[in-house]
Amino acid sequence: MNEKIKWGIIGPGRIARAFAKGLSYTSNAELYGVASRTLQRSKDFANEWSVPMAFGSYQELAEEKSIDAIYVATPHSEHHDAALTCMRNRKAVLCEKPLAVNATQAFSMVQEAKKQEVLLMEGMWSRFPPLMEKVRQLVHEKVIGEIRLLQADFGFMPKDLDPAGRLFNPSLAGGSLLDVGIYPISFSSMLLGMPIDIETIATLGKTEVDEQASYLLKYESGAHAMLHSSICCETSQEATIFGTLGSIRIHKQCWRPQKITITNHSTEKQEIIEMPFNGNGFNYEAESFSDLLLSDKKDSDIMPMQESLEIITLLDRIREKWGLRYPFEKN
Amino acid sequence: MNEKIKWGIIGPGRIARAFAKGLSYTSNAELYGVASRTLQRSKDFANEWSVPMAFGSYQELAEEKSIDAIYVATPHSEHHDAALTCMRNRKAVLCEKPLAVNATQAFSMVQEAKKQEVLLMEGMWSRFPPLMEKVRQLVHEKVIGEIRLLQADFGFMPKDLDPAGRLFNPSLAGGSLLDVGIYPISFSSMLLGMPIDIETIATLGKTEVDEQASYLLKYESGAHAMLHSSICCETSQEATIFGTLGSIRIHKQCWRPQKITITNHSTEKQEIIEMPFNGNGFNYEAESFSDLLLSDKKDSDIMPMQESLEIITLLDRIREKWGLRYPFEKN
Repeated sequence: MNEKIKWGIIGPGRIARAFAKGLSYTSNAELYGVASRTLQRSKDFANEWSVPMAFGSYQELAEEKSIDAIYVATPHSEHHDAALTCMRNRKAVLCEKPLAVNATQAFSMVQEAKKQEVLLMEGMWSRFPPLMEKVRQLVHEKVIGEIRLLQADFGFMPKDLDPAGRLFNPSLAGGSLLDVGIYPISFSSMLLGMPIDIETIATLGKTEVDEQASYLLKYESGAHAMLHSSICCETSQEATIFGTLGSIRIHKQCWRPQKITITNHSTEKQEIIEMPFNGNGFNYEAESFSDLLLSDKKDSDIMPMQESLEIITLLDRIREKWGLRYPFEKN
Repeated sequence: MNEKIKWGIIGPGRIARAFAKGLSYTSNAELYGVASRTLQRSKDFANEWSVPMAFGSYQELAEEKSIDAIYVATPHSEHHDAALTCMRNRKAVLCEKPLAVNATQAFSMVQEAKKQEVLLMEGMWSRFPPLMEKVRQLVHEKVIGEIRLLQADFGFMPKDLDPAGRLFNPSLAGGSLLDVGIYPISFSSMLLGMPIDIETIATLGKTEVDEQASYLLKYESGAHAMLHSSICCETSQEATIFGTLGSIRIHKQCWRPQKITITNHSTEKQEIIEMPFNGNGFNYEAESFSDLLLSDKKDSDIMPMQESLEIITLLDRIREKWGLRYPFEKN
């Protein structure tokens, strides 16, 4: 293994650009290769980000000896195949969220990671900024007492309303759940684990994907989570944790946390903590993943494979309640 | 009818005190009588608020010729009987929310109001402050476009945790739903009408009442409402209306609205409107009710009987989903 992890990227789109920028802020990683099914797209991306190697197929990048880790940044529906290609060539894989479009795909990915003894992690980048570490610590120290209620939402109004595009196309596993709903759901999983009960409603649009959805989760402790996702309306994009003693509000945008307010309910005293990004936010997960790889770890404590499996299983159950199956899931 | 409405109050407790204070800020009403089952409690209240007449039974107040309107401020479980006593004596009734503990009781009250041709209104005082009128106007004028999502919660940590007290005692229809949950539910009814779908979860406590509950409501238009009530945790006590063009946030405490922020989602421009109470807030509903009475109206446009019936029917359906029946509802 190198001193710096040599990264490759599959799927040179918008999110790949954000990740490439993030990599430039890390101390333990560098961008070394890029792959697209269209060679010219790879070359353009390579030029833009000064990447040494550009490939016209995922397979070629996966086989490239000098590459240690690959970031899968394709549309959701391609995560599974792309990640398997990489892992079969014993590359560590950081896969954009959701890990896969359903639990079946995700299970086979985790199985492959174990078989090949490679590191696999879902790219839930929200968990890695220092402020989210602080939130976990405050909750763990019971600064706000026992959690009673979580509220979190992620809704936005897309600029691109193309029904064939990744957001609205059911064949690409479009809809709000997998694109943005997974953020609040992963957030509640991080703090409360798996629920004992779920209730949910969704508004399906013309293309039959969930344009907005609301989720109620109930936990063993009696705590509730109220979560929302939307691709037809901008919502607050905040998250608040209400406890028996006080609350922690993660300000907009809670999925890239840089400001929180802690309120003590008895004294009404408020404390604001701001931790602006040193970088663009993607650097924290890239740095964490690279560290794991440098110390030969096969799983992350912050975003473990087992939890990613639980989350995608939960998303499947939610879709089952709506009666929503993607075309490739239909017999 | 007098130039000023002469009011009586049944149930001289905490909420009656707030209402009595509210009356002192009105121009068209005065407090003239008070009744309790305990004469001494009536007399003490009469002394405290300089009320001319104090009675040791509800019946006596209801029969008193000089009284025009009666405010029922008893625990929820007594609303029905107290209101019927008043209406049978042809008194107009403003009944603290909820109108009754279930739809059966509420229907018989509305029936009696129609039979006796008297004014009956649920005391949902949140609807009457000038700022709530402003919110209705802004929504009506589509300043934030079409409503996509409502969020509202009302959770507090009670000082009195007595299991036999009105908050936790199932025989008094305790629990969060009827005490505070009705505020966000009435709020969504005001703006969106009746839902086509409901999902809900509750955490029942030791006394088997709902110590906290979360509600998802779905509307014909595709809009959602996410509501929460709690008597075991202080929540934000805010309400936000998210539309296709922007949002209106009603700041803490949204159930006695005095400050809103309107955000335009395209320009990110924010406008804050503050309308502090001229009085203690209860004056607005008292003034509105007195006006109706002075102009011989039998129903309110702001809080119509039909809507109160729809709301209590919804609350019954919610409790049915939890399997929660009050002791007096069991066969």
